[in-house]
Amino acid sequence: MPTVRVIVTLKPGVLDAPGQAIHKGLAALGHAGVRAVRAGRYFEIELDGTERLDDRVRDMCEGFLANTLIEQYRYDIV
Amino acid sequence: MPTVRVIVTLKPGVLDAPGQAIHKGLAALGHAGVRAVRAGRYFEIELDGTERLDDRVRDMCEGFLANTLIEQYRYDIV
Repeated sequence: MPTVRVIVTLKPGVLDAPGQAIHKGLAALGHAGVRAVRAGRYFEIELDGTERLDDRVRDMCEGFLANTLIEQYRYDIV
Repeated sequence: MPTVRVIVTLKPGVLDAPGQAIHKGLAALGHAGVRAVRAGRYFEIELDGTERLDDRVRDMCEGFLANTLIEQYRYDIV
């Protein structure tokens, strides 16, 4: 029974306001030496069956989990 | 210049309402064969310097990025 781990992040060049806020928060808490923070979403999906796995995962990502206009996704299957 | 990739998820046993909503959404879109979805947050943090790296990352996670009462985190350094 495969588990798919998907990470969705904003595309490079798209303003990452949450990441910037987290960056400032870390600095305010005294964490020096943080150069950049990018924020994203994570999904762990347990699937039945192994046929057409990549196709199914890509459909889920492009049709629902990620907004591919501004976001990119990657996944691995474990 | 190390980059740390942090994944924060709810601890097992804590109700994952977003995960359940995403699960239902996938089913409504016709994605059969999804057994479970867990949702989480993802952070990519670029750091200066490499000294005390694990200590620094754990401090950030436990003091800010994760609510360790109900969430767990893991990270890798690339």
